[in-house]
Amino acid sequence: MVDMKPSAIREIFKSLTDPSIIAFAAGNPAPESFPKEDFAALSADIFANNAVAALQYSITEGYPALREQVASRLKNKFGIGGANDATIIVSGGQQGLELACKVMCNEGDAVICENPSFIGALNAYRSNGARTIGVPLCGDGIDLDILEDTLKREKRAKLLYVIPSFQNPAGLTMSLEKRRAVYALALKYNIMILEDNPYGELRFAGEDIPTIKSMDTEGIVIYCGSFSKILSAGMRIGFVCAPNAVLQKMVVAKQVEDVHTNIFFQMLCSKFIAERDLDAHIDNIRELYRTKCALMLDSFEKYVPESVKYTRPEGGLFVWCTLPGNIALDDFVKAAMAKKLAVVPGTAFNCDTSAPSDSFRITYSTPSPEQIVRGVQIIGEIVK
Amino acid sequence: MVDMKPSAIREIFKSLTDPSIIAFAAGNPAPESFPKEDFAALSADIFANNAVAALQYSITEGYPALREQVASRLKNKFGIGGANDATIIVSGGQQGLELACKVMCNEGDAVICENPSFIGALNAYRSNGARTIGVPLCGDGIDLDILEDTLKREKRAKLLYVIPSFQNPAGLTMSLEKRRAVYALALKYNIMILEDNPYGELRFAGEDIPTIKSMDTEGIVIYCGSFSKILSAGMRIGFVCAPNAVLQKMVVAKQVEDVHTNIFFQMLCSKFIAERDLDAHIDNIRELYRTKCALMLDSFEKYVPESVKYTRPEGGLFVWCTLPGNIALDDFVKAAMAKKLAVVPGTAFNCDTSAPSDSFRITYSTPSPEQIVRGVQIIGEIVK
Repeated sequence: MVDMKPSAIREIFKSLTDPSIIAFAAGNPAPESFPKEDFAALSADIFANNAVAALQYSITEGYPALREQVASRLKNKFGIGGANDATIIVSGGQQGLELACKVMCNEGDAVICENPSFIGALNAYRSNGARTIGVPLCGDGIDLDILEDTLKREKRAKLLYVIPSFQNPAGLTMSLEKRRAVYALALKYNIMILEDNPYGELRFAGEDIPTIKSMDTEGIVIYCGSFSKILSAGMRIGFVCAPNAVLQKMVVAKQVEDVHTNIFFQMLCSKFIAERDLDAHIDNIRELYRTKCALMLDSFEKYVPESVKYTRPEGGLFVWCTLPGNIALDDFVKAAMAKKLAVVPGTAFNCDTSAPSDSFRITYSTPSPEQIVRGVQIIGEIVK
Repeated sequence: MVDMKPSAIREIFKSLTDPSIIAFAAGNPAPESFPKEDFAALSADIFANNAVAALQYSITEGYPALREQVASRLKNKFGIGGANDATIIVSGGQQGLELACKVMCNEGDAVICENPSFIGALNAYRSNGARTIGVPLCGDGIDLDILEDTLKREKRAKLLYVIPSFQNPAGLTMSLEKRRAVYALALKYNIMILEDNPYGELRFAGEDIPTIKSMDTEGIVIYCGSFSKILSAGMRIGFVCAPNAVLQKMVVAKQVEDVHTNIFFQMLCSKFIAERDLDAHIDNIRELYRTKCALMLDSFEKYVPESVKYTRPEGGLFVWCTLPGNIALDDFVKAAMAKKLAVVPGTAFNCDTSAPSDSFRITYSTPSPEQIVRGVQIIGEIVK
């Protein structure tokens, strides 16, 4: 643990208690997305009718009703889950990623990752003594040639970590052809895929693309999902669908980390799914992000010189911006903070922590419409 | 992870969904101890007035108000916490133990433990690649001579793990003299103490004994506490008070495990402490366990042959029973299950998992008065 540093994003997040700062840096879902009235009513019901079970120790695998609801939703809506798969509840998607690495990797083993990638995952792998080996992203996902070279070279690679939909931080989505090719390569080189899909339900443009897990006839994909972006991030509830043999070891590893996930909120999720309309709720969230993302992209066209490149996401929370060669990322980030705009420098997402970056991540999720416009104006002012 | 097995207790716990089984095996707090009406009212208040903060991502260290309340309660009531200490919130005491080992031990390092000891802790240390080295318990706590021999011999010992008050599973309490001696030995041999105190507030007879952490002038004690036995086990909220340098690394390790602990319930705990009377609530729990423990011990006198030895706890949840030499533990446990009585065999708590045991752990916490009497009768019948 000596070499482990706190996540740059979490540290930036701590500084965001200053309300005068425009928070383009956070990865938080929009506060409007929390079903707080429904949660209040359903919680009252749990306290009135099932309080003891909701406050007592429970089993590590998760609340049985919620496990079934998640498994059947994954199956019916996304074609996920084969005969040898099972589903467990974890304390946020983060725990699923950490447990997968703990179970699959010994110290010195490697996790092959998209580069850039989700910092929380990279740190989880590092904390387990695994090396993070980056493969660059193209517009339609991970670079297949470099991926195959890496698979050939890295004899100790045990996991291939990908975020195929609305990738964090790059906002890109892997094409269907590439998903199939990645699956075939993983089979060929005998490596398990860790598919992280926290934003998959947040598509607000274009057509859904099947997950890699939905193609998993051979039982080589560990799939992590989460309620953080569709119900509440603070409750810390995610899920993992994976081959049962892998999952059993993840349960043992979870048991020693936190025994089980907060059971009251597992029951609350279960009740929400049973008694409310989760799909309709998600539709509302999509509409929210569609509007906010469109405002951000419009503002870019208006206020930011064309020398700045940026992704046009079809879902998720993030836009990935790349500076022209004459502007150093460090200088830009400092200038932005001086103007009370917080962004995350791309260096934070590099698999190789010493590698440079010319990009930064911003979100349209939490800022108000006024803040979105003003924040993009600041980006334009600095670049000009 | 290949060698890791699920906790025997958790597995037994899963079988306890059969209501016809008398559950002397669980380590659950009594359901009567949960302040469910207060929690219902305070939760409604949070949803009405502070819902967004309670459902959004939060900081890894824990809800600031709760951290302050815990720190000041530890300081004012128990004299815990020096100038270089800080306090963080974790996802149950279990996570505190696991993080402490992750931060202090490399693969192959050793954690010196009381033998027998808490199985969840032993498994957490094993999952981090640490060896668990057992030192036998005497009536007043760990055997000091064997402890010193072990400290001399084990050059890679990095933590000394003790549960000084109402030890799990043995129900014993370490004397004040022995606590001082253990602290002095740890100083002499340059090892950190991990003091686990989940039951400390559940004393229902005798006088409180100061924690080892309250003697920690040199900053060598990591102290883990929990709300599991005094408010709710299922919400998974514990805390760690430790030297700030150690704690900062634990925060980094926690960040990759679950980002932060369920924030709604952190706020609920904070509100309970601020707006209700936690000490009065704990007094009620003590009275509950005082009565139930007395009933169990009375039943032992009435129904169990004197050849069975058992501890007479002054607090906590457990009685530790030792069989006469002519009865094999395995046979006893099987006979008990055949009569629908679940106990935990002592082998589950051994640091050396292959070592035999002639003891088993039982609880008076969750069974009803009728079940307590009937369960002890069954023990007597089998032994006779």
